[in-house]
Formats: sequence, structure tokens, C-alpha cells
Amino acid sequence: MTRYVISLIRGDGIGPEQTAAAKKILEAISDNTSTKFTINEVEAGDAALAKHGKALPEFSVDTIKNSQACLKGPVGESAADVIIVLRRMFDLYANVRPAKSYPNIPALSPKVDMVTVRENTEDVYLGWEFNADPGTVVALRITSEKASRRIAEYAFKTATMRDSKRKVVAVHKANVMRKGDGLFASVCREVAKKYPRIQYSELYVDAASMNLIRNPEEFDVIVTTNLFGDILSDEAAQVVGGLGMGPAANIGEGFALFEPVHGAAFDIAGKNAANPSSILLSAKMMLEWLADRHKDRKAAEQGARIEEAIVGLLKQDKKTKDIGGKLSTTEFTDLVAKEL
Amino acid sequence: MTRYVISLIRGDGIGPEQTAAAKKILEAISDNTSTKFTINEVEAGDAALAKHGKALPEFSVDTIKNSQACLKGPVGESAADVIIVLRRMFDLYANVRPAKSYPNIPALSPKVDMVTVRENTEDVYLGWEFNADPGTVVALRITSEKASRRIAEYAFKTATMRDSKRKVVAVHKANVMRKGDGLFASVCREVAKKYPRIQYSELYVDAASMNLIRNPEEFDVIVTTNLFGDILSDEAAQVVGGLGMGPAANIGEGFALFEPVHGAAFDIAGKNAANPSSILLSAKMMLEWLADRHKDRKAAEQGARIEEAIVGLLKQDKKTKDIGGKLSTTEFTDLVAKEL
Ligand SMILES: CC(C)[C@H](C(=O)O)[C@@H](O)C(=O)O
Ligand SMILES: CC(C)[C@H](C(=O)O)[C@@H](O)C(=O)O
Repeated sequence: MTRYVISLIRGDGIGPEQTAAAKKILEAISDNTSTKFTINEVEAGDAALAKHGKALPEFSVDTIKNSQACLKGPVGESAADVIIVLRRMFDLYANVRPAKSYPNIPALSPKVDMVTVRENTEDVYLGWEFNADPGTVVALRITSEKASRRIAEYAFKTATMRDSKRKVVAVHKANVMRKGDGLFASVCREVAKKYPRIQYSELYVDAASMNLIRNPEEFDVIVTTNLFGDILSDEAAQVVGGLGMGPAANIGEGFALFEPVHGAAFDIAGKNAANPSSILLSAKMMLEWLADRHKDRKAAEQGARIEEAIVGLLKQDKKTKDIGGKLSTTEFTDLVAKEL
Repeated sequence: MTRYVISLIRGDGIGPEQTAAAKKILEAISDNTSTKFTINEVEAGDAALAKHGKALPEFSVDTIKNSQACLKGPVGESAADVIIVLRRMFDLYANVRPAKSYPNIPALSPKVDMVTVRENTEDVYLGWEFNADPGTVVALRITSEKASRRIAEYAFKTATMRDSKRKVVAVHKANVMRKGDGLFASVCREVAKKYPRIQYSELYVDAASMNLIRNPEEFDVIVTTNLFGDILSDEAAQVVGGLGMGPAANIGEGFALFEPVHGAAFDIAGKNAANPSSILLSAKMMLEWLADRHKDRKAAEQGARIEEAIVGLLKQDKKTKDIGGKLSTTEFTDLVAKEL
């Protein structure tokens, strides 16, 4: 028996419904297998801001610090004050966002299977901005060799482990940001040399945004800087039929946080209409990460079973309303739980 | 009779074939109507760099300065050294990029009719980058109230003139760049108040990249900063079936430059296979701009006829290979010329 302590950020909008679904699934695994979870709920986001005056209160940070991994629901207006702070605090340098075509979900191509590996600590996300004069703002966009190398290494390792196309494409805009993206691109090229069996190429970000629509099935691993990764991973999620299916992992050396790619979706909140797949697939990524870190093959198996259960339901066209189905959040979650 | 002096940058890759097509069309108009053109060819780009040691030689700049508008083919590796310099030199502050569904071209939706109004002078495009230490580059991203207001005004005027959806959406990332994009957003909001009949909204850039795929027909006018406009306009061009159809106008107070959205496409260069539509539709935008500036209704009519001729051919499924047709560049161009 192995027990993991998980911190669970409920979030805003559809967050509480999604995290309730995730909790149910983790509890089903605890009940039926030797992989056990202690789940500590965490207040963070708009609700926490309203109640405690802080989007990410100290005691929430403490609970997260005392956990082995964090699973996070989407946060509303205060999203940046939660997620950017956590990414930096735990040095979660790799934001890993798979985009896959699933059965019976309308994608631009039925054969998409790619992952965006997004640098998660620098670029404009440091928030360093100042006024040059009252009417002019200068924002600093940071690119370091260290962070570039770390994310490039992560991307190539990812490509090596995926038994698919064995391709890495570095996406940048080095024709405009010659020094900054030039540095990023040259580091990617250097790292590529260490991986001769991985096919390496580069694309300007504008061409990449086009190619994701034109031939999404060509992509395997995209490695890119923070803000481009933000944009392209959302685009890729829509290419495979919508954000409701899109999970993300924020990976550091010692800790990791998992969350849907999408936002709080206030328009459908409280209606039992959210698609829980994005957070359940995030939980699957969490189990894979825990498995890898703790040499716990069984945890990885439980993770794989979550995805299999979702795919099995989709094959029978059992799905939530956002992707053309009839099931509510809880109905879909219950069906997934039954398979575990 | 009205005569316009046009400078024509031939460019690289498919550039010479496209500009030859544009020249043929402008000459057909000169021959058949009272709108006449004097066309002065300009060397700029990779070929100019190889020949003269400069991607944009002085004498080329002089020819452009002595013209009333510039039509530009795509440029290769040295693209940034030509286009960014010209945009700045002539203060071409508005980059206007329509994306429209055309008959018999596979778009994600048959009813797309939108335009990206991209700020064209600042953001990271000033090229201000320096090393903070040997392994760290800082790029300055500039956002000024003046440039934001100018582009917002341009976008709202554009929305007023389009007799369609009367919507402007400002795209930014003010949750991360709170000061810079915060300034841009607040200026857009202010300008919006002057246009109560235009429906105004805002989108984060990641959500915009998603919505362009999910419901492209909802968009009317996007107003955004330089780099986001670069990415989103390429994406929008692909949403309506490819860059081969995408024109762009770079507009200043006293001068304007027109060019395809796409690059030099070296893979199909010299094969008489390029789609000339993007440059011909750019020529149409040039005629509209000249018409407006010189109160010359006839020039606008000639511009409209270029687009009508292209649409007429597409309706009969007469098209170039890039969009599934059989015609070569010159065959398609000749058919357009016949209609004028
Ligand atoms: C909420 C926002 C700051 C965040 C980001 O830009 O990283 C979000 O869009 C994401 O992709 O996780
Ligand atoms: C060539 C490049 C500098 C340019 C840009 O980024 O503006 C191009 O992509 C464009 O959109 O015109």
C-alpha cells in the first residue's frame, strides 16, 4: 500500500464541481486499490480573496507545501495571483500540455497526438513592468540560458519517452527578438545535438499558429517560451475539440501541480454541466508523475485506467453537453468511477 | 485620368512571381480605365542583400519615398530587415489584415468576415534587447498610450465603415502584463465610449486563439498589440483556408504599404504554382486607400473589380493548386486580367 498526500485547490466557477469529480475518482481508487490518497482541500482564488482578503492565503500555501502534489481547479479573476505565484514559488519550470484527438469529439483531425512543453518561469511572467514616462510602459521579457536549457532538455526527454513521432519543434520569434529568442533557439539547437534520434526543427510562432490548424497531426512535441506556450496550447486544445478535455502539468524538481488548461467558465458554473475530463486527465498526469518519482508502477496503472475509462465512455458516445452529449458532470463522473 | 506612382518590391521566393502578377493586373487597369499607374520596381530582401550587401539599400528607400504607395512581395530570411524598418520609417502604425471565407475554399466556417487591426510600431518590435548577464537577455516590450489610442481609433473607425457586425474586441493579456496591456485595454475602453453603436468586448489572447477556431464567424474587428496581431492574423488566415488568400495593409498618416500576410514560400518558388490572390487582394486594398486619400471613387471601383474577378473565378472553381485547383500563377492571373 502506498499513500499520497494531495492538496486540492477547489477554485472558482466550475472549479468546485470539477474538483468534486476529481475527489470522487481519487476516492474510488483509494477504495478499490492499494494506491491511497489523503486529500487536503485548499482555499485559493476569488472565493478565498473575498473571504480572507488574499487570493492565496498563507495557510493555503502551507497545506500545499505539506502535500506531495497539488491538483487545482480553474480560478476566476484572481487566477494570475494564484497560479503564477505557485509556479514561481515551487519553481515549476515545465508546463506540459497534451492535446489529443479523442473518439467522438469533433477535432480538426482525428489523429492529433501532441504535447506543448511550455517554459513556465520567465518571459513576461515575472511581472517586471515600469513607466518610462506617464504614458509609456516598459515590460521586461526575460530569457535565460539556464531556463531555456532546462525546458529544452525536458522537451527532448518527453519526445524520447513518447513512442510516437519522435519530433521536437522549437517555436520562437527569433527574427524579431534576435537576442532573447535567438538565445532560446540556439540552446534548443545545442540540446538537439544530444538527441540524434529525435527529429528537430524550428518554427516562427506565427507559422506555428497556422500549422496547428493546417496539419495538427504533424506535431509531436512543441517546446516554446512562456507566453507563446500559453497561446499555442489553448489553440491546440481547441484544435482537438475544446478545452473541456485539456489537462496540464506544472512540473518542478521536487513538486508538481496539475490543472485544467481552461478557465473558470462562470457561464456554466453551478449547473452540473462542466466537463470533468480536463481535471480527471490532469489527475492522470499527477498519478504518472507520482509513479515516476516514487517508482510506483501501480500508481501509473491507476492513472492509465482513468484515461481508459474516459475513452471507453466516449467510444459509446457517453459524454457531457459541452461536447455534444447529454450527461451532467456528476453522471459522467459516476460512470468513470464505476470503471475503476 | 488619374495617375499613381507605385513602388513595387519584388521580394524573394514566390515574391517575383506574385509581383509579376500584380504588375500585370495594374497594367490591365491602366490600359482599360482612366486609373493609370507608373510602377517603379524596387530591390529589397535576400536578393538585394546578396547583390548590394544591404537588404534595404538607400536607393530602394528613395524610390519608395518618391511613390504614393508601395506594394510588396514576400521577403525571405531578411524579411524583418525590410518590413520592420519600413513600418517604422514611414510610421505605418496600423496593420490591417482581413480574413474572409471565399467560395470553394475550405474554411472552418463559410461565414467568416473579420479583420485584425494590429498595432504596428511598438511592443517587442523596437528590437531593444540587452544582456543582463552573459546568460540572460532582457527584451523591452513597449506600450504607449499614444500608439494604443491611435490604433484603437483606427479599429473603431474600421468597424463603423464595415457594414457588418459592428463589433470590436480588444485582445490582450492584461492579467499578466498588468501595466502594459492594462494601459492598452483601458485606452481601448475609453475610445469605445466614443462609439456607442459599436459593441465592445475584450478577450485574453489565449482565449482569442481558441475562439478563432471555435466561432470565427463571431469576429468582426480585432484590435490588438503588435506581436499578438502577428500570431492571430496568421491563425485567422488559416481559419479561412490558407495564407494564399491573405492580404495586409500597413497604413500611416501619409503613406501606406501593402503586402501578402504570408512569407516567401521557397518550397514552391519558381514553379509557377503560387497563389497570386494575396498580393492581388493587397493591390485592391491599395486602390481603396488611394481612392480614400485622393477622393477618387474610380480607383476604389477598380479595386472592387479585382476582388470580384477573383470571387467570380473561385465560384467556377477556377483556382490555383494550393487551394485544390489546377491553375498556375500565370493562368489564374490572366483570367483575372481578362475581367478588368
Ligand atoms: C491565468 C493565466 C495567468 C494563465 C497563464 O497565462 O499562464 C493561464 O492562461 C494558463 O495558461 O494557465
Ligand atoms: C517578417 C516578420 C518580421 C513579420 C512580423 O512579425 O511582423 C511578419 O511575420 C509579418 O507578420 O509581417
